[in-house]
Parts: sequence; structure tokens; C-alpha cells
Amino acid sequence: MKICAYAAKTFKGELAKWSYDGKIGPYDVLIDIQYCGISRGDVLFIDNRWGDTHYPLVPGYEIFGTIKDKGIKVKDLEIGEYVGAGYQISSCMECQYCKKGKEQFCKKQKVLLVSGYGGASDVIIVDNRFVYKISEKLRKPEYVPLMCSGLTPYSAIKKVGIHEGMKVGLVGIGNLGHLALQILVAFGAEVTVFSHDQTKKEALLKLGAHKFVSSTDLEVLQEHEGNFDAIFSTSSGTLDWELYMRMLTLEGTICFIGLPPDNISFPATVLSDYAQRTIQGSYIGSRSEMKDLLKLAEVKDIKATIELFPMEKINDVIDKVRNNQIIFSTVVENK
Amino acid sequence: MKICAYAAKTFKGELAKWSYDGKIGPYDVLIDIQYCGISRGDVLFIDNRWGDTHYPLVPGYEIFGTIKDKGIKVKDLEIGEYVGAGYQISSCMECQYCKKGKEQFCKKQKVLLVSGYGGASDVIIVDNRFVYKISEKLRKPEYVPLMCSGLTPYSAIKKVGIHEGMKVGLVGIGNLGHLALQILVAFGAEVTVFSHDQTKKEALLKLGAHKFVSSTDLEVLQEHEGNFDAIFSTSSGTLDWELYMRMLTLEGTICFIGLPPDNISFPATVLSDYAQRTIQGSYIGSRSEMKDLLKLAEVKDIKATIELFPMEKINDVIDKVRNNQIIFSTVVENK
Repeated sequence: MKICAYAAKTFKGELAKWSYDGKIGPYDVLIDIQYCGISRGDVLFIDNRWGDTHYPLVPGYEIFGTIKDKGIKVKDLEIGEYVGAGYQISSCMECQYCKKGKEQFCKKQKVLLVSGYGGASDVIIVDNRFVYKISEKLRKPEYVPLMCSGLTPYSAIKKVGIHEGMKVGLVGIGNLGHLALQILVAFGAEVTVFSHDQTKKEALLKLGAHKFVSSTDLEVLQEHEGNFDAIFSTSSGTLDWELYMRMLTLEGTICFIGLPPDNISFPATVLSDYAQRTIQGSYIGSRSEMKDLLKLAEVKDIKATIELFPMEKINDVIDKVRNNQIIFSTVVENK
Repeated sequence: MKICAYAAKTFKGELAKWSYDGKIGPYDVLIDIQYCGISRGDVLFIDNRWGDTHYPLVPGYEIFGTIKDKGIKVKDLEIGEYVGAGYQISSCMECQYCKKGKEQFCKKQKVLLVSGYGGASDVIIVDNRFVYKISEKLRKPEYVPLMCSGLTPYSAIKKVGIHEGMKVGLVGIGNLGHLALQILVAFGAEVTVFSHDQTKKEALLKLGAHKFVSSTDLEVLQEHEGNFDAIFSTSSGTLDWELYMRMLTLEGTICFIGLPPDNISFPATVLSDYAQRTIQGSYIGSRSEMKDLLKLAEVKDIKATIELFPMEKINDVIDKVRNNQIIFSTVVENK
């Protein structure tokens, strides 16, 4: 089957129409793509930030659409069903991680962009075990970013163990961050957001932030020393991590959801001096967490604040993301 | 009351006999010191490593001895009783941390060397709530280092949640490390020790290490990638932390018990790239952990491998510790 996509053929290259051959395996479904999220991760792949990009590169790893065809072993999904797919598209189902329902750590996993072509395309073929039914309420482009930009903070927030009444700081509030904020609020946390961008203040307070703090005002930042049970960073910049670590209570946790480009560096005393602090990493989430998040999103109406564009405008969208002209999230649509 | 001690009066100064006035408060006991541990922490304080040393500085924060006198509010301890005391000598007993039995995080805590004169002395006055009964079996100098060099790894090991069958790496095997090893083994872990010092190999295997790995052999180190559920570092040096972090399983934890002098630095991808790794700090331990450790030490015979010296030789001992001439632990004795 010929699949028509938009691909970058070279380093930082413009996307152009391109097609590849696809074959539906016994466990696969063919999704007719309606919506596809485009975010910073796509730009980083086009720009070969991790050094492992293979061109042609088809971006897009947050997908909503309708099942158009399926393999013979697919039992739980029917043709015509409305579904979502995210970054991870398969795992071995046999290793220790898969067996305990943490298939995001499977060493044989496949993920879009690294080992598959993404969702900037007419259709996509994905292992049905990584495809999620989308309820009627959520079949709107605002919910598309949940598939990865929502799942990643969700899993991190679960791992840190956020619960009712905890004081939480959130640093770097874009696509991942504004979803993290809503998830934290849904879990009952009191969230203070740190941003250098005052223009986001009103929107963030509306999304449930308890307090907005300007991250450029060092004096104000220092007032928060020892204040937070947890801090989540979705920033992809390099910040003064020691400063943020000192904002934690003595048993607090800082969790990196975004990946800063430079080394994370801090004096060991921040961890241990009269304290027992924790630094936590996180990586996407499991299938069961994806399902839990979709349920939570339905109940608490967690959704992205998006800008929607037609798929044909994808190069404009990529440029906007690259140049930080998107406030929160962006989604492209096949019409 | 005049208390006769050994004090460093200047930066890196030799210890000399010196006396200060002490007063037994209502909650205090006066301990007639028999044994006092001397370790790297003492040298770091004499050498003003943390920048907050006040001279005269009396070293020693692992103490065994007999209660000689007590304040009027002391109910649970009697004159003549054999007891131990460690680094922390008081807390407020009223804050959130004290109330939940984590008095090591109390902001009003007092600790020896920072806010009190240490155990290189004839007697010492300590709040009885930070004094522990020592069973007959443990009244030997080999058990003295448990009071802090044992407590610190014990608390860290509990926090990380080590249990039967876990694969654990241990880096930097001196005073704290050889006690950490025995505690890990007591908890059922399979422990691999990393050391640059081949001469310690036999002793460490005898103490329960499952495997000894030369930390200078990069090729051998790399073979351990993804191997350990947890790694504890008691090293006070700066190592290639990224290398050790990569030895963790995808959900593993590295815990710093020793404090490296330089910043801890690593790429964020080590925490988050297909992984959800944790970095953990730790700081001494609580009173209940101290009691639990003393019980465990009795059952499993966890004790330090020590060199014993008379108190009068304390300057020689300090020199030996400063020059890395002590293999594991050292204790001085008042005769």
C-alpha cells in the first residue's frame, strides 16, 4: 500500500510530499488520520538534535483518526472505530517490562520518528495494542496532544506520587507544561507556575494555576526556598537547577519532563545537606497510564489550548514551532 | 562543670588539650566517654571544608560511654547505663518533621561539630532523647561507628527501598562503605563493590560482597550497563557519574551518601531516555532508624573493621585519616 506523507528529506529540510510502502501486519490497524499534533519534538527530530535522525523523516506522533483496515489478529478494535495513537507504536510483549505493564521501557520497542514514519500523513499503520479508543467527547483536536504531550507528564506525576494538598512548582509552561498543570490540578495539587512570559499569566491562572511567578525575578524566586513538595520542569532550556532544587522541601522531588540540552549540574549538598531530596527522570508512559489519562481527561476536561491548521500548511506550523510562535499546542488536520 | 577535650584551635590545626564549661540541662545526660570514632568528617571540619567551622573545634561524633549524671526530666535512662550518641544531639520536638519521627530534618536541630563540641573529650553532655541504650553484645569499639557511619547508609538504604534479591552496586568502600555493604547484605541484596583498591578485595568479599570490580577498568565497568537496581556511592571523590548512572536498570536509583566536592553533572538523557531513573540524596537518619540499626547489628553482627588507638594519640589518628592510611574505621579510647 502506498502511504502519502510529508517528509523532511535533509537536515532541517522543508517538508515535501513523499510516499512510502506500508503493509498491515496481523496485529496492525490502518488509521485514516484526521488530526496530528506537531510539537517541539518534531522539530528536534527534523533538526537531528539527538544525532540519530534518518531521513526522510515524517513528523507527528500524536494521532487521532478512524480505523480503515486491520490485521487478522486484531480482536478489540473494529473498522470504523475512532482511535488515537502516540509516540510508542509497539513493544515485544515478552520482556520483564512488558510483563509488568511498563512497556515504555521495553528494549525492543518501536517509536515513531525513530523507527517509523509519523502522522503527517494520510494514513498510518500501528500495532493495535498501542491504539486507544477515543470516546465521543474527546474526538476534537484539543484532545490530540494528550497522546504524548499529556501522557509524558501524567506518568511523571504518577511516579512522583502527587496527591491532594501537595505544593507543586511547575517550570517551563508550553505544550507539555500546560497539560501538566491541568493534570496536577486534577490530582489536587496547589500549583505555582514559573514562567518568563507574563503574557501567559492569565491563561495559566484560568487553567488552574494557584500562583504565577516570574522566573526572571531572582529575588522572588529565592523567597520560595524550601517551599515545594515537588517541582516539575518541562523546560527544554538550561536553568539554574540548584536554585529550583533549593525550592524543594527537605524531602522534595524535582522531576525532569523536558530535557535540557546541557548537563544538569548541581552541588551534592543540595541533595543531602540536612535533606533527602530526589531527582527524578521520566519517559513517556505505559498503555495503562494512557487509558487512565484519557478517563481523567474526560472527567476533568483536560485538553490542550491549540492552534489548528490544515495539513497542507505543515511547513508554516513547523516554522512557528521552531521560532517559538506557538503559545501552547498545535494540531494539523486532514480535510 | 569543666570538660577536658582535644581541640583544633585554627584551620587545619593540631589538636591540643583544651577545656570548656558544660551545664546539664533538664533533658540532658552526661556521658563518661569510653570510645569515640574518628572519621573523614572530622578532618573535613578541622580543615573547614564546608566553610562554617568555628574554632576551637572538638572532633568526634560517634560516642560510646556510661551515663555519669542526668537532668531532672530524664526518665528512661539511668546513671551507670551504657549508651551511644551520634552526630545529632537535639531537635525541637515540635515541628512537622519531629512530629513524624524524622527529626534529622528539624530546622532547629543541633549537631556535634557545628553546634556542639565533639567526643574527643573525657565527657559530653547530650539531650537524652538522642542517646541510645547499647546492649551488652555491642559494647565494643567495633560497634561505635554505627552511631553515624552506619546510620547514614542505613537511612539511605531504607529510603531507596532495598529488599531481598535486588542487585546493588556500591562505590567507594571505606568507613561508610564497608558498613553500607553489610547492611545491604543483611537486607538480602546481591552487592557488587567498585573500588580502585585491590588490597580491599578479600576483606570485602568476606564482609559479604558478591563481586569485586576494579573501578579503574573502564571496559569492565561498561559491561555493567543496565545491571543494577540501585547504586550507592559513599565516595567523597568526583567520579564519572554518567557512567555509574548508565549501570542502573531503566527504573534504577543512584543514591549519594558521600558528598563529592565538585558539582554532580550528567546529561538529562541518562535520567529520561527510555528510562525513569532516580537520583537520591540522604542525610544521617532518624532516632527510630538508629534503634532499628542497633537491633539489626545485634542480629546480623554488623560492625566496623577498626583500628583502635588511645585518645592521647588522636593527632596521629587525624593524620592517618587525612592521609588515607586508615582502611576502614578508626576509634579512640579513653583509658
